Amino acid sequence: MIEINEVGPRDGLQIEPAFVATDDKVALVDALSDCGFARIEVTSFTSARAIPALADAEAVMQRIRRRPGVVYTCLVPNLRGMERALDSGADELNLVMSASETHNQANLRMTREQSTAQLLAMLERAGQAGVPCNVSLSTAFGCPFEGDIAPSEVERLARLFAGAGAAGITLCDTTGMAYPTQVADLAASLAALLPASIPLTLHLHNTRGMALANALAAWQAGMRRFDGAVGGLGGCPYAPGASGNASTEELVHMFDCMGVDTGVSLAPLMEVVAALPRLVAREVPSQLLAAGPRLRTHPAPGR
Amino acid sequence: MIEINEVGPRDGLQIEPAFVATDDKVALVDALSDCGFARIEVTSFTSARAIPALADAEAVMQRIRRRPGVVYTCLVPNLRGMERALDSGADELNLVMSASETHNQANLRMTREQSTAQLLAMLERAGQAGVPCNVSLSTAFGCPFEGDIAPSEVERLARLFAGAGAAGITLCDTTGMAYPTQVADLAASLAALLPASIPLTLHLHNTRGMALANALAAWQAGMRRFDGAVGGLGGCPYAPGASGNASTEELVHMFDCMGVDTGVSLAPLMEVVAALPRLVAREVPSQLLAAGPRLRTHPAPGR
Repeated sequence: MIEINEVGPRDGLQIEPAFVATDDKVALVDALSDCGFARIEVTSFTSARAIPALADAEAVMQRIRRRPGVVYTCLVPNLRGMERALDSGADELNLVMSASETHNQANLRMTREQSTAQLLAMLERAGQAGVPCNVSLSTAFGCPFEGDIAPSEVERLARLFAGAGAAGITLCDTTGMAYPTQVADLAASLAALLPASIPLTLHLHNTRGMALANALAAWQAGMRRFDGAVGGLGGCPYAPGASGNASTEELVHMFDCMGVDTGVSLAPLMEVVAALPRLVAREVPSQLLAAGPRLRTHPAPGR
Repeated sequence: MIEINEVGPRDGLQIEPAFVATDDKVALVDALSDCGFARIEVTSFTSARAIPALADAEAVMQRIRRRPGVVYTCLVPNLRGMERALDSGADELNLVMSASETHNQANLRMTREQSTAQLLAMLERAGQAGVPCNVSLSTAFGCPFEGDIAPSEVERLARLFAGAGAAGITLCDTTGMAYPTQVADLAASLAALLPASIPLTLHLHNTRGMALANALAAWQAGMRRFDGAVGGLGGCPYAPGASGNASTEELVHMFDCMGVDTGVSLAPLMEVVAALPRLVAREVPSQLLAAGPRLRTHPAPGR
C-alpha cells in the first residue's frame, strides 16, 4: 500500500502561461477528489504578483467539494500566506525551502538561514492552529546551479524540521537530477534518521526520463508516499522542452502493474488526464494518455 | 559493466516515413561507431517492398566504416535475407519471432510453428557459415492483441533456440507492456534456464514511460545487455503518439549516474542525438536532449 498525492492543481498549473479559470480549477480538483488520492495540493497562497496563475487561491479553496478521507493541502511561502491558508480551512500546509543555497536564493529570494528561521516560525504558528505542516526540501538530489548537493545538508534540514514539529518531510527532485541509487541511498539514510512518525514523501520530476525508475528505487528502499501531477504537468524552468512532474497516472499505472495498492483508480484518473490538453491549451507529456494502459488490447489486423 | 546495443539505424529508421538517404545512414552508423557501443544493428535484409525505408541494406553495409571491437549486426527475416546479410559481411545476425501467436501472424504472416521451423533452418545455415545468430523474441512481456503472454511460452522458445545454436536471446518488449517486477521475474527464470554461455539482452520500449524503470529492474536481476535506439527512435504502431524504443542516451545517462560502466561515451552520443531531428525531419522523444545531463549546471539568475 502506498499513498499518492496529487500536486497538479498547484505545481502543475502554477507555471501554465494561460490562466485556468477558477471554475475549471474547481472542477479539476473535484474530479481528482473522486480518484482515490490520499492528498490533493489544491493551490498556493502566494502573492498574485509572484504567481498570477494561482491568484484565485481563496476562491478555489472555498468552492471545491471536500470529499471525506482526502487531505486538501496548500503550499504556503510565508506567514502571511499561512494565515490565508488557515482562513481557507486547509487540512494541511506544505512549506518549502531548498537544500541548495543558490537555488534557495534564486527561488525564494532569501538565504537558507532566513528561510529556516521563517519555516520554524511557520511551524510554530501552525502548531498553535493545530494544522499539520509538511516541509518540502527542494533540490534534495541536485541543484541546477550548484550541481550535486551533499546528502548531509538534506539530512540536517530534515532533522531540524522534524524536531520542530513538521508532520512529514518531502524530498523534492526539483529539476529532475535524481537517479535510482541516489534515491535509494537518501531514502534509507533519512528513514534511519527520522522518527517513524514522520513520513517521507518523494516528489519527482521526469526531466531526464528517470521519474519511474526513481519511484521504483524509492519503493524498494521503503518509501511509501509519492507526489505526482496529472498529465506530467509542471516543468523545469532551466530545461526548456523538458517534461514536468512525474505523471501521476504513470506512477499509478506502474504500481498497479506491480500489484502495489495505490488507492487511486486509474479509469477516472485517465478521464481527468484526457481533459487536460483542453484545460491548459497544450499537449501534456503523458505517455500513458497516448498509449493507454498496458492491457488495453487492439483488434488483430485482417480479422 | 553492461553492454549497450544501438538498434536505432534498424529499429528506428525502419518506420520513419521520410526515406533517410544512404549517405546519411552511413554517416549515422559511422558516428555511432565512435561512441563505444558493443554492437550496432545496422539494417534489415528484408524485402524493399515490406520495408522501403531500409531498401538500401547492401549499400549501407558496404559503405560503413568498421571500427574494430564493434559488432555490426543485421536483422534477417528469412533465409533469403540471411544470404544477403552473409554476403554483406555482417558480424552477427538477429533473427526474430513473436512469443504471441497473434502478433507473429500479424507481424510475420506466419504461424509460430512456421516461424520456429524457419528460425531453426536459419540457425543451421548460419552455423555452417560460422556467423553467430541472436534470436529476438517479440512480445515477450505482453501482446497488443492477446494481452499477457505466459512466461512459459517465452521460456519454451528461448530454450528451444538456445539448444539449436543461438548465440544469445533477446527479450523484446515490443509495444511497451513490460513492468519492473515482471521484467525481474522473467530475467531470473530465463537466467536459471539458459546456459551461462547464452547471454540475455533486454529490448525495451518507452510506450508507457517505464523503459528506464524496467532497465533498472533488469539490471538488479542480473541482466547486463540492453538494446536502445538513439533519440528514442522507433515506435509502436498500435499506440499513435507513443514514444518508441528506450532511448539509448537515457539508458547510458542513468547507468552513468549509477556508476555502472556502459562502455558508451555520452558526449559524442549526444551530438548524434542532437542531429537526429534534422535527419528524420521530426522531433525525437529524448528527454535528455531537451534537458542535458544532470550535472549540466546553469548560471544563477541575477549573477
